Amino acid sequence: MRDKTVIALDAMGGDHGPAVVVPAAVEYLRDDPDVELVLVGREEVLGPLLPTSSGRLRIHHASQEVEMDDLPSKALRSKKDSSMRVAINMVKAGEAQACVSAGNTGALMATARFVLKMLPNVNRPALITALPSIEGHTYMLDLGSNVDCSADHLFQFGVMGSELVSAVDGNASPRVGLLNIGQEEIKGNEQVKQAHELLAASSLNYIGYVEGDDVYRGGVDVVVCDGFVGNVALKSTEGVAKMISHFLKQGFRRNWLTRLAGLMAMPVINDFKRTIDPRRYNGASLLGLRGIVIKSHGGADVLAYKNAIGIAKKEIYSDVPNRIAREVETHLEKRVHA
Amino acid sequence: MRDKTVIALDAMGGDHGPAVVVPAAVEYLRDDPDVELVLVGREEVLGPLLPTSSGRLRIHHASQEVEMDDLPSKALRSKKDSSMRVAINMVKAGEAQACVSAGNTGALMATARFVLKMLPNVNRPALITALPSIEGHTYMLDLGSNVDCSADHLFQFGVMGSELVSAVDGNASPRVGLLNIGQEEIKGNEQVKQAHELLAASSLNYIGYVEGDDVYRGGVDVVVCDGFVGNVALKSTEGVAKMISHFLKQGFRRNWLTRLAGLMAMPVINDFKRTIDPRRYNGASLLGLRGIVIKSHGGADVLAYKNAIGIAKKEIYSDVPNRIAREVETHLEKRVHA
Repeated sequence: MRDKTVIALDAMGGDHGPAVVVPAAVEYLRDDPDVELVLVGREEVLGPLLPTSSGRLRIHHASQEVEMDDLPSKALRSKKDSSMRVAINMVKAGEAQACVSAGNTGALMATARFVLKMLPNVNRPALITALPSIEGHTYMLDLGSNVDCSADHLFQFGVMGSELVSAVDGNASPRVGLLNIGQEEIKGNEQVKQAHELLAASSLNYIGYVEGDDVYRGGVDVVVCDGFVGNVALKSTEGVAKMISHFLKQGFRRNWLTRLAGLMAMPVINDFKRTIDPRRYNGASLLGLRGIVIKSHGGADVLAYKNAIGIAKKEIYSDVPNRIAREVETHLEKRVHA
Repeated sequence: MRDKTVIALDAMGGDHGPAVVVPAAVEYLRDDPDVELVLVGREEVLGPLLPTSSGRLRIHHASQEVEMDDLPSKALRSKKDSSMRVAINMVKAGEAQACVSAGNTGALMATARFVLKMLPNVNRPALITALPSIEGHTYMLDLGSNVDCSADHLFQFGVMGSELVSAVDGNASPRVGLLNIGQEEIKGNEQVKQAHELLAASSLNYIGYVEGDDVYRGGVDVVVCDGFVGNVALKSTEGVAKMISHFLKQGFRRNWLTRLAGLMAMPVINDFKRTIDPRRYNGASLLGLRGIVIKSHGGADVLAYKNAIGIAKKEIYSDVPNRIAREVETHLEKRVHA
């Protein structure tokens, strides 16, 4: 039988803090009988928000908070009792098997890296998330924690991303693609070209270069890129989706006929919204660490935050850090012996 | 009175070649009495496609074609009589004031640069296009011809983009933003941070860092980024738009009720499609050259190609290369004297 599963939540992090995290925790536990959640943060704030007694939901006091605009260095140096830091400490100490935070990404990454340490042979943690595609979904990494990646970094992202998808999706041989600006060999920058060689020589199911539109078309399970490019692609996507929704709303509001059409089209549009609802994809994993850290979107609502908790549980059950450690070792050995 | 306006079209370029370029030219001339078009390409192919005599549409023979997968170096060295090269030569010789090509971007950039030369103080040509936004549209550059840009390159893009928008949109003081992965000063790579300083110190209407979603939200007129990032953002956008359209179509086809709803919603959806129709945005300008070169999408249809011709005309009328040359000079002088 598995030990009890405990997930620590940075209850003060994100744009809404406990106003989202506490109800998300309560609702999550209602649906999942196998998990215990720990709300990390100021007891005097969290206590009054908590419904009377639940054996599987408790508060762990932490006196400080990391602000959304705190520099990572400041968070590390002078916020040693922040809800974020204490949640990560619990993972380090084995009191929790994973933590979730909607706080400042830079501070989360720096703190997680400092406290948990990197896996052997991994240089940088990478942020990965699933995005909707015509086929189902596509994972993309890195999404913003790494700029100026070397070919080795990109290769490590490929190995880690492939193993994550294998672990959580039960996909034995995920198709890995490298984001570039054209299928032609002549394009792309030096790091990308070198990473292409490394990936092609590996035992990963590497399908070669892919372009920005392939993320949403499908045909690839893991898209590898540096954090700058990944973040821009992700944000552009959010932007275009919002623009489309804006124009459609405006169009259906034009007159009584379009309002009626809108009413009739509502079930289709709602279905469609559910399919690509970013809340259903909320929860990016920080890969490469000796522990599971899930980053929720800062503006996540209750539904979105619950999804991030669910991802944490999935990664605990599929033992993601250990699987990644083994996979990275295998691939680096192969490279050395090649 | 202005001299007659002549635009040279690379009639063999693009996925469809003359099958699109010839009807686009004919239709364009029907709507615009002020322009003459020259179809550059193989006479034996183009002749039979041409409707009987039009004083404003003629063929200029060129015996070769640049293939979509030709390396730029090959196009330059061994295709000196290609339709692409000859169309650019006509601009150089003053026989045309602009040219349009749907051919291979790399070859087009290399050939245009070789034949027309760069403007003083500009290191690299940049590809710019307008994209739809909630506010109307946003220009973005560079979109794929430059990878690994320095801060100076990015600064030049800002100056050129600002002047283009000023010239063609009559916007006296376009808002220029620099694409980054967060508003915080700590993020971004070195080149971007340095470009930020250069832009902030300039007399451009620089509004600081913007993120991928701002392109579609509006609030900025010109978004500056390196070609890798710009191309990925553009392609991701295409991808997500296609995915959305796929899911909506699928949704409306589900049963007779949704089909009826789809029928009723049709006018709204068609209106919306028109608003963001990529064909209405087809035609990217290669800025920084001593002449006007417009890149049409390789897969452009007749409507899209006509739009690219219209952009060429607009740039001729607003004297874009000379305006950019003056603007670049002003800004570089200011930098030297600062």
